[in-house]
This record gives sequence, structure tokens and C-alpha cells, in this order.
Amino acid sequence: MAALPAPLLDSLRACFGERCATGEAVRLQHGRDESSFAPVPPDAVVFAQSTEEVAFAVALCHEHRVPVIAFGTGTSLEGHLHAVRGGVCIDLSGMNKVLAVRAGDLDASVEAGVTRKQLNASLRDTGLFFPIDPGADASLGGMAATRASGTNAVRYGTMRENVLGMIVVLADGRIIKTGSRARKSSAGYDLTRLLIGSEGTLGIITELTVRLYPIPEAISSAVCAFPSIANAVDSVIQTIQLGVPVARMELLDALAIRAINRHSKTDLRCAPTLFFEFHGSPAGVAEQAQSVQDIAASHGGMDFEWASKPEERSRLWQARHDAYYACLALRPGARSLTTDVCVPISRLADCIAETVTDLAESGLVAPLVGHAGDGNFHLLLLADPDRAEEMERAEAFSQRLVERAIRMEGTCTGEHGVGRGKRKYLALEHGEAALDVMRAIKRALDPDDILNPGKILPD
Amino acid sequence: MAALPAPLLDSLRACFGERCATGEAVRLQHGRDESSFAPVPPDAVVFAQSTEEVAFAVALCHEHRVPVIAFGTGTSLEGHLHAVRGGVCIDLSGMNKVLAVRAGDLDASVEAGVTRKQLNASLRDTGLFFPIDPGADASLGGMAATRASGTNAVRYGTMRENVLGMIVVLADGRIIKTGSRARKSSAGYDLTRLLIGSEGTLGIITELTVRLYPIPEAISSAVCAFPSIANAVDSVIQTIQLGVPVARMELLDALAIRAINRHSKTDLRCAPTLFFEFHGSPAGVAEQAQSVQDIAASHGGMDFEWASKPEERSRLWQARHDAYYACLALRPGARSLTTDVCVPISRLADCIAETVTDLAESGLVAPLVGHAGDGNFHLLLLADPDRAEEMERAEAFSQRLVERAIRMEGTCTGEHGVGRGKRKYLALEHGEAALDVMRAIKRALDPDDILNPGKILPD
Repeated sequence: MAALPAPLLDSLRACFGERCATGEAVRLQHGRDESSFAPVPPDAVVFAQSTEEVAFAVALCHEHRVPVIAFGTGTSLEGHLHAVRGGVCIDLSGMNKVLAVRAGDLDASVEAGVTRKQLNASLRDTGLFFPIDPGADASLGGMAATRASGTNAVRYGTMRENVLGMIVVLADGRIIKTGSRARKSSAGYDLTRLLIGSEGTLGIITELTVRLYPIPEAISSAVCAFPSIANAVDSVIQTIQLGVPVARMELLDALAIRAINRHSKTDLRCAPTLFFEFHGSPAGVAEQAQSVQDIAASHGGMDFEWASKPEERSRLWQARHDAYYACLALRPGARSLTTDVCVPISRLADCIAETVTDLAESGLVAPLVGHAGDGNFHLLLLADPDRAEEMERAEAFSQRLVERAIRMEGTCTGEHGVGRGKRKYLALEHGEAALDVMRAIKRALDPDDILNPGKILPD
Repeated sequence: MAALPAPLLDSLRACFGERCATGEAVRLQHGRDESSFAPVPPDAVVFAQSTEEVAFAVALCHEHRVPVIAFGTGTSLEGHLHAVRGGVCIDLSGMNKVLAVRAGDLDASVEAGVTRKQLNASLRDTGLFFPIDPGADASLGGMAATRASGTNAVRYGTMRENVLGMIVVLADGRIIKTGSRARKSSAGYDLTRLLIGSEGTLGIITELTVRLYPIPEAISSAVCAFPSIANAVDSVIQTIQLGVPVARMELLDALAIRAINRHSKTDLRCAPTLFFEFHGSPAGVAEQAQSVQDIAASHGGMDFEWASKPEERSRLWQARHDAYYACLALRPGARSLTTDVCVPISRLADCIAETVTDLAESGLVAPLVGHAGDGNFHLLLLADPDRAEEMERAEAFSQRLVERAIRMEGTCTGEHGVGRGKRKYLALEHGEAALDVMRAIKRALDPDDILNPGKILPD
């Protein structure tokens, strides 16, 4: 706390009262996410309840040239919220009001602290849902800030496609509105898209208007095991190429399945497996499922299993959603260094094959789960944070994987964001000239570098 | 030409030879688009054949602080390419190579001068298509620069959703690559989306990688007339709200239908009309069509007419695509002052109703055509450019329409872009603070204001 100028802290306390905290427990809690990095707590935490309060806190920090970091649910995976240069954390979890649900327009406006599950709960009885589902029950503000997606992206897109507009607090405390409620617009620079994925380094998102979708008339799920990952991936590729509008198409390797069986008390065959979900009319869903079953069969798919009843589907997909925690439980005490490459789908089989070989050679334990329909997959490298050599081995493996994905015209991160962890790869992925453009934008919008400093852009 | 520094012109001529033109005819041809503004020719035109040539020309202009304007097909509608401060026009139409079609990844890389029809022609035999279809056969570079869309956007999105990455020449002549071929990425600021819709004011797009889609197994079209525009719009709203995945849903008023009948020798009933297109499996298409027919019937739809054969569908949609020219032909000698508002779909009926009343009171002739599924509609205000009073009346009407749309949480331009024509509305739509952010970005990326100056941002 000594790091914060006393007048700043006084002003924050005057405004926020007990909602300004400097105790160690609160600071620690706000300096940790789900990455493998050691936590880095902020100097103080304020719990904001309105855009105006956020603007007030940011303006104060601006005046004192003190870093500001937005906090949603603390579930980021790349150290996004670590206070690497100290400063004030603004906790937005109290800004959790669903402001408007407009069924007629298929959109909703929410405060940034509303989580995806909370939004969907509040949509009960409207016949609508919000599809973006990262593993964690993250806040929508955080999801926008990291350009999150999840299992439904193959059909419904990512946060990039599903935010219509936002309220954002700038580095000097001014408040802007981006976008509108129109479905499309050509009216000037796309500030909404610029801020989505900017990880709190260009502004702090305090409200969002997101797209909603009618709950499909029919939903069905299927699971299918394959003799090899290559067979599973080939099925995915063919499904995409034929334009079957699957809603979800998830790949898990045998180790991930074993972890899930243990954690979620399922009894799936321990083999590379695809989880599917189909949305549409009853006839449409049946047709999609038949197409996919035919494709899977032609690639050696086994035990094609159906789940149409809501409770069966929920159990299946809950198991998939719990995969991260299930995998962590494979090795108690380990943290997961989670990779997140995404490649063009034609390269997915190659990318995974080379990666699996590399993994075997490197002697690491790492279940694979992937949003295969998008060409995006994760390895959860389970490493013991106390064993430096192991962490280094995992880090070196991760680097080779990223380099491989970029060589295949892919990206170092499909949905987790850059944070601290992927900064070192941005030059390789984008080139120095493009990074210079990003730096110029950062300087233009945050000349004093107070907004979540030390993230995204390499020094 | 006197306006250009002699050393600049000498260098351009040394590089481009005969592909550097300063003759009046060429300049005039490059100073006009399809807007109602009087043309403003550049001082010179160079015909580029590569990214490096564009970079060379831009670097030279940068050195001499001379404006640079990119030119594709000259079909913009808001004076985007007018050389309002003189300078050099870079014609990219010669950069018309389809560089790669990757059927396995459903993407293609093209030079910026490739037009949408050319791309689709080159996709023959691949089973794929590129869906974005503004009325004109525009270049893909121009379409990206204006964030164009068209009739398919309700299903396939706009250029925003369909460009994976680009090669862009910056204001100082440096070349950057944005994005990757991965379907999604969270790796840093979204420069692709920032440049899409920036109308050549932040960089010049020289290559693009765009998404392709499998040609649907089945396509069918339908036309349905309604007793009133309100009935037609209500059918649109209900279709969207029920989540029927129509590929196209276009609204035309009775006057537009009359224009089309005349121009395209069709014999449609002169009444407000919806054009539909359905994409999917044979069963899926039949199901969608049945749903829509039921909806239309419940709103007074008449003469529901089908076209499943390719030649019937083409004729129908060609008529729709020719609407702009058909409407212009309603009043020979007139130019069209074309409006482009887009509102939340729940407000579409109100917005159109108020607008139709206003139109009647203002005594203007203006057929209505709209991408109703997106909440986007155009009025083609047919005014005689030589009659100042009439142009003023049209301009005042257009202003009231924009203000109405923004009041309804919509946008002044859904797909045409800002250019010269909509600059004055940006402050109303976005607010001064958001405009300041756009200005800061412009200054950061083009400090000398040489890239298409006088466009998008109000002074």
C-alpha cells in the first residue's frame, strides 16, 4: 500500500468507504487468476457499483499516474489481472444488474459484472439464450475484454460477433458509448471490436449490449469415440466442409476422458472422443445428426451415443465443462499451463499429430480438450509449480506448440487472450510493424500506460 | 496537377511509367462515385499492380505530405473517393488476382481489386461461394474499407464477420499483416476490424483473406406481396424472432416494385413486397419456407410465389439487385440521394411508418428497398442535382431520417459508410468523447492526415 500516493488512497476511501480495501486477503484474492503464474496482488481494491464510480476511480488514478486493473471473476488464464506494476484493482462483480432484455430485438444490456450463467438464468421464460460459454462462469465484461468464446463458437461466434455495443471508461476517466443497438453499422471506426480483446489496456468495459438467440426448438447431443485422434479430427473437418451447422463439436483425448470419468462419474470409453450438439427444428436436428453419424462412421467412429433429454444432455455437457477441473484433479497440487492455439482446420490434424509426438517426447502429462470445429485446442500441461525444471519443460513445449501453430497460419491464442503469458509471441504472430500499430493505439488512448500495464504488448 | 510537387510526380512517373496518369478524363473518372455529390478529381492516378507498388506510392506521398486515396470500382455512395484535398489516387483494380482458394478451410485470399462476382466466378467447381453482395459488383478491398454487406447479411454477416485477415499499407508506406487464417483469435488488438470500415483513412487494404461457405444443397426463393408495409415488416420481425434462419429477407415498397417491373420486365403486383431466400438441406429449406409462408399469411401476405429453379431464382434476385438502377430510371436525369439507416428490428415498423409520413409531406419521390431482416433500409431520394431547392429538401429529409434512426438506438449508416455524406451525423450517433477516441486513433496512425482526408471524421 505504501506504493499508492496517500492523497489517492484518501480520495478512494472518501468515495468508496468500506468498499475500498487494502487488507492482504482481499488484495491477494484480486491478484490471482487461474493461470500458472504466481499471483501479483494490487495495492488496493475498490468495489464499484456504477460506471460513474469506475470513472471516478480511473480519473483519480490517471491524476496520480497509478495503474488500474479491472476485475470480474478472476478466472482468466494468462495472468491478465496481475498487478505487475502495482496499482488499484477495480472489482466490477457488484455491477451485476441485467439492465434490459429486449426479446423483440434478441438483445440484452447488462452491467459488466453479470456472469454468463446469471444472464442465462435471467432469460428463463423468454425463450432466449446467450450462447458464449467459456469453461468458467466468467463475467460478461471479462469475456468481452479477453474476446472469449467456448464450445458454441463454431455456430454462434465469439464475443467479437456477439457484442453490439458497450459503455467504456477511458484512461482519463471519460465515459464513451460504442456501437448502437443496430445489427450492423458502417458509421466510423469499430471501437467496439477494438475494445473487445483489449484486456483492459485501452478502457474498462462497464456495460455491454449482447446478442441473444431463440432457444432452438430441438436440441440433441451425441458422443462418439474414435480409434485415433486423426480419425476424430478428420470427422470434424468433413463436417465443417459439408456445412453441417453443428452447434458444438468438441474433441477430447483419451486422457481427458479418463479425467472426466473420474471427476464426473461418467463411464465413457477411454478413447479420443467427439461431443456434438445439434440445434434446430426436430427434423433439422435429426438430419444434422444423421449426417454427422454417417461421417463419423466412415472414419471409424464407435459407440455413437445419443442424448436428447435435457437432463442427459446437461450431464454430458456439464462433464465437458468440468473438463478443466477434472484434468487438474489428475495430478493434485499441479497447476495447469494451458495452451490455446488455433489453426486453419485443414492443419488441425497435422498440428495435433506433431504436438502429440512432441508431448510424448517431452515426458509431460497433458490432457487435450478442443473446440475442434474452430481449429482451436487446449493442452492442460499439468506441472508442479515447485519444480522449476518441470515448469521450464512445460514452457518450452508450449513455445514449440505456439511456433508450430503460427507456422501453420494460426494464432498463439484462440480465446484465452494474451495477458502476461503470450506477450512474447505477439511479434512472431503479427510482425513488428503490426505491433507498432498496436503500440501507437495504446499510446494514443492511454499515454501514461496506466490501464492494465504490462499486458498484451511486449516491452 | 499543379497542386502536386514536381519531384513527387517525377518519382511516380519513374516508377509507374504509363500507369501514372494525369489526363483529365482519367482524373475525372477517378473522382466520381455513385453518390449525389459533385465529383472531385484527384491530381494524378496511379494504377498499382502489387502491394509493394502501393507502399511505394504511399511512402512518396507521405514524404511530400500529399493526400492518397484508394480506388476500387468507384461504386461507393457517400463520396468516399472524392479528392477533397487533391492528391494521388491509387487505382487497385489491376490487383485482381485470386491468390488462393482453400476449399478445406473455407477461405480464399485475394488482391484488393478482385470484385465479388469475380471471386464467385473463380469459385465455380469448388462448391463454395462468397455471400456478401452489395448492389454493385464492388471490389473486395472497397467492400472491406466500407464495411459493406447486402442481402445475405441476415444469415452470413457483413464484411466485419467475413474477413479473416488483410495486408495493409500504412500511412508511411510500411506494410502490415493483420489477423491470421485461424477462425478465431484473442491475440491482441483487432486491427482487422479496426481497418474494416475505416474507408482508407487508416491504411490501404491490398490483400484480404475472406471466409467462404458451402453452396447450400438446396436453395429456394419466394416473393410475397402485402397490403401494407407494416404487415410486411411485422412478418419480418416475427421471422427473426422465431429464429428461422432465412438467408435473405428483402423489403421493397410499391414504388420500387413498379420501377423493377419496368426495368426488369417483371410483372410483380405493385404492393409492398418481401423477397425471401432459403438455404439448407432440401427438408430444411422446405421447413423454413413453410414457416415463413405461415407467418406471412397471418399478416395478410398475398400471391406467395415460389422459385426453386436456378434460372427463376436468378431472374428474381437479379431484379432485386437491379433495384438501384431501376429506381434511378424512374426519373431520368435525377441522382439518388440514398439513405441507409439501420435500427433495432423492434423499431423498424415505427421508423418506416414515420418516415413514409415524412416523405409524403416532403413531396419527394423515393422508392424504398431494404435489408429488413437486419433492420436496414434505403430510400432512394430521386432529386434533380440542378435544382438546389429540391436537393436541399432531400437533404433535410435525410437528416430527419438519420435523427429518427439514432433516436431509436440505430445508426446513420448500416452498410454504405460515412464518406463525406454522413460525417455530420457522427457526433450525434457516437457522442463527442467517442469521436475523440476515433480522432486519436486517426492521429496515431496517420499523423499528417494524408490517408483519404476529409472523410469519416468531422473537422
